[in-house]
Order: sequence, then C-alpha cells, then structure tokens
Amino acid sequence: MGIFGAIEAGGTKFVCGIGTGRDDLVTTHIPTTSPDATVAAAVAWLRERSGGRLSAVGIGSFGPVDLIRGSITSTPKTAWRNYDLAGAVAKGLNVPVRFDTDVNAAVLGEARWGAARGVSNCLYLTIGTGIGGGAIIGGQIVHGLTHPEMGHVRIPHDAADDPYAGACPYHGDCLEGLASGPAIEGRWKTPGCDLPADHPAWALEARYLAFGIANFVCTLSPEKILMGGGVMRQGQLYEMVRGEVERILAGYVERLPEIGPPELGEFAGVLGALALARSAL
Amino acid sequence: MGIFGAIEAGGTKFVCGIGTGRDDLVTTHIPTTSPDATVAAAVAWLRERSGGRLSAVGIGSFGPVDLIRGSITSTPKTAWRNYDLAGAVAKGLNVPVRFDTDVNAAVLGEARWGAARGVSNCLYLTIGTGIGGGAIIGGQIVHGLTHPEMGHVRIPHDAADDPYAGACPYHGDCLEGLASGPAIEGRWKTPGCDLPADHPAWALEARYLAFGIANFVCTLSPEKILMGGGVMRQGQLYEMVRGEVERILAGYVERLPEIGPPELGEFAGVLGALALARSAL
Repeated sequence: MGIFGAIEAGGTKFVCGIGTGRDDLVTTHIPTTSPDATVAAAVAWLRERSGGRLSAVGIGSFGPVDLIRGSITSTPKTAWRNYDLAGAVAKGLNVPVRFDTDVNAAVLGEARWGAARGVSNCLYLTIGTGIGGGAIIGGQIVHGLTHPEMGHVRIPHDAADDPYAGACPYHGDCLEGLASGPAIEGRWKTPGCDLPADHPAWALEARYLAFGIANFVCTLSPEKILMGGGVMRQGQLYEMVRGEVERILAGYVERLPEIGPPELGEFAGVLGALALARSAL
Repeated sequence: MGIFGAIEAGGTKFVCGIGTGRDDLVTTHIPTTSPDATVAAAVAWLRERSGGRLSAVGIGSFGPVDLIRGSITSTPKTAWRNYDLAGAVAKGLNVPVRFDTDVNAAVLGEARWGAARGVSNCLYLTIGTGIGGGAIIGGQIVHGLTHPEMGHVRIPHDAADDPYAGACPYHGDCLEGLASGPAIEGRWKTPGCDLPADHPAWALEARYLAFGIANFVCTLSPEKILMGGGVMRQGQLYEMVRGEVERILAGYVERLPEIGPPELGEFAGVLGALALARSAL
C-alpha cells in the first residue's frame, strides 16, 4: 500500500502528515498564506518526506466546503474562496485525493484510532470559536446534499433567563450562537478560560450543549459522542452535559450514548485526514 | 427470487401484503387483537396467498421497538409489550424476516417506489397523532444505538407568542408536543381538520415543523424530505414550511432539500415492509 499523506487545512495553518497510522505519523506545520504558496509548500513537503512513495492524500478542510468540487466556498479569507484545493493537491502529487470537512475527518480519525474505535455510529463535536460536528452512521461519514452544519441547529432559548441574543451572524441564538467560545465571552464579558469552574456560565453552557446533543440523539441515535475543542478544556462540562441530556430526554430514549472526550487531541485532524487518504484507495 | 411478504404492524390493524413491488402488490387488513391471534391470522394469510413460495418477510412496526430483538417495547397495549413479533413471524413461515420501525419502512418504500426514487439521502416525516421520522443516508436506513425519535427534538418555543405548554407527556414542548395533531387540537380547542386553511394555526404549525426540519437539515443534510400523515392533508402547509425553512436557515446552508408529499399514500407502510423483505435476502 505504500504510505499516505494527510493535510489538515486550517485557517491559520496547514498541518501535514505522512505515515500509515497513529504510531508512525510524522507531521509538520505550514502557515496558511496565499493558496498557491501554501499548497506548493505542502506538496513539496509531502513529496520529499515520502520519497515519492505516496499512495493517496486525504484533506480535512476548514469550511464551509463544496464536497463535490473539493473546494472551500464562502470563507472570509477571500483568496481561498472557491479555490480548488483538492484539485491542486492531486495535480501537484499525481495521486488520488479524498477531501472532506475538518470535523468529518476528525470523526473518521477517532473511529479508526481514537475514542470511537470499532463504533459504527458516532458523533464528533468541536466546541470552540464555532461549533461543528461530524457523524459516522453505519460505518460511513454522513454527507448528503452537502455536509451537516450541526452547530447551527435551533434549540430552546429562554430570553428571560438568559437575555444574551446570541453570537451567530446568521441565526443569532442557534446552538453555536449560544454556546461557542465567543458566545460565552459575549454573554459574561470575560473569556471562558478566565471563568472559574463553579461559575454559573458552565451550567448554562452544559444546558445548551445538551439541548443540541439531545437533538442529535433523536435524529441520529449515535452510540458514542465525542466532545472536543477549546471550550471542553473545562472538563467539568462532561458530567454536567451527561446529566442535562438525561434530564432533557426524560427517559423517553431508553439507551443513551456514551459522552466523553476525543483521544487524538491535536492530532485528530491530521490523523482524520490520514484515514481519509486510506479510504481514498 | 420468488415473492415477498410484508406486514405493516399498526396499533389498530395489520396490513399484510404479498408481491414483488408496487405493481403486483395484493393486500389485506387484519384487526390488531391479541399478539398470538393477530400473528396467526397474518401468517395464515401470507402462507395461503403465496402458495408457500415466500422468500422473505418484512415488518414495519408501530413502536417504540427493539430492533435487535425484533419486538415492540413500551407500548400502552400491554399484551404486545416485549412480544417477539419478528420471531413469531419467522417461526410461523420459516423464512428470513427483517424488522424495522414503521417510519423506517416508509422511507425505504418511498426510496424504492415512491417520491424518493433514486435519492440516496432522504427523510420521511409523518405528522399525525404523533410525529415520527425515518432517514436514509448513503442509501442505508439510519439506525444506531436504537432508532431515531425525530418527533422529540427540542425547538424554540416562544411562550409569550404561544402559551400552549405542549402535548408530549415526556417533554411537553418538543416538536411532537407543539406540532402533532393533538397539539393543534389542544391549543385551538378544535381539531385541525375543522380549522379553515387561512386560520393562524397553520402559520404557527409551519413554523414549528420548519424548526424541526431546519435541525434535520443541519444534522443529516438530506436531498429530499417527504412529509406525510394526517396533519399534512392541509396541503397549504408544504409551501409555508418551505418558506419558513428558508427563513430560519437564513442563507447559511447553500442548497436546501426538496420538501414535498410522499407518493405511496396508504400503501407507504406495507410497500416499505415489502422493500424490507427484499433487503432481507
């Protein structure tokens, strides 16, 4: 099979990797500048480090992305808008490329090497600057007409209890608008990392995240839900979210999914891209 | 391949069918009484009408169901609780049986012979006494830890605008609690079928259904959504729901799914069960 190349394409850096799995992965970081310069640097590193033995490359990209065209679409980084990232990498390396969203790559990586090993129905959520989700159902990444946008589900918001209008420029008080890092900072006028673990911010945060998760449970029935991203560094949230999900579903759903942290940490994205590369063959 | 048997197991009747598809389906109705008597009658009819040539049987059942055990679980019809319906049919006819929820059968039937022909990612919603949904993603019915319970997603509910507390005994104002037939009657003190097409009930109904659908779009990204059930006999709702979904998603999701009625009408359930039977082999 040779070895595989991986690119986690982010807004500030590209993490590139080479290997066959979690144990032999070698990575490097390339700053995200212009599309042509960034892709040329990534392609050069992948070519050189692999000694020309690459079998396929996987790309997990920031978005929103067009999965059919393999490009990023409406990013505020105008130079990247509609840039054919998958095509540029395929042309540069002359190997098959599989392209997907960063969160879809992450769920695939966790299902292959991380906390969701052997789980056919699982969900990866990242709660940070934004909220995103990737799902594997029946062993396959959920795509569809386009890709899911799980951060933008609408949930109950009691404005009497929490008058904050929400941070999402599109929807105001969708899940991301109420529970992302910027929403926490906007509501409490303090970054989440500066709020103590017993601050009332976290009970509210857990409730909103649990409303989102309850909806994903009712819609997808996952066996396992992994929650990562900067906000989840508040480790007390896991137990609070589990309790709130149980309270919200009120015994109607008999079996609830496990909810816990991902395992691959900062390597989730690039290992996910490596898993994409393996599945490209 | 021979011919296939189908059972749509409902709380008041079992619809049984024999055939290979939509064009040659022959059906009968058996009243739902005790499990043993009902299954014996269904088995006898299937055996006799098939001349013993059945290849497999599919069952789409009322629920909630245990998909692993093939039984109905917590129904108020106590005699049916934990009854091994799939096992009893398999034993009676000595053929493979595939068992699923009624809504999962319905989406499979619509995908094979109805309004979602050739669509790999679709959703079937029924809005009536309850609200239920079945999804096909990547050509496969979505199962998971158990089966989805799409009627029970939580959505925004502005109590100042609509003080009705919701009809769901578990969750109060979940989607089913706000938008099922009983919720319409509870809120307006009039059955929905007696409310004129320009009554404000329908704008509110469309908004709630659209909140649910917007969440399904963000989570599953279906290409097509079919809405059936008694409430959708108010045909004006389709256009109203489409408009509200567009308004709620506010341009963030670039491509929206088609939303329309199912095609198989009263035969959706039994044809879905027939499709299950075909997939059992």
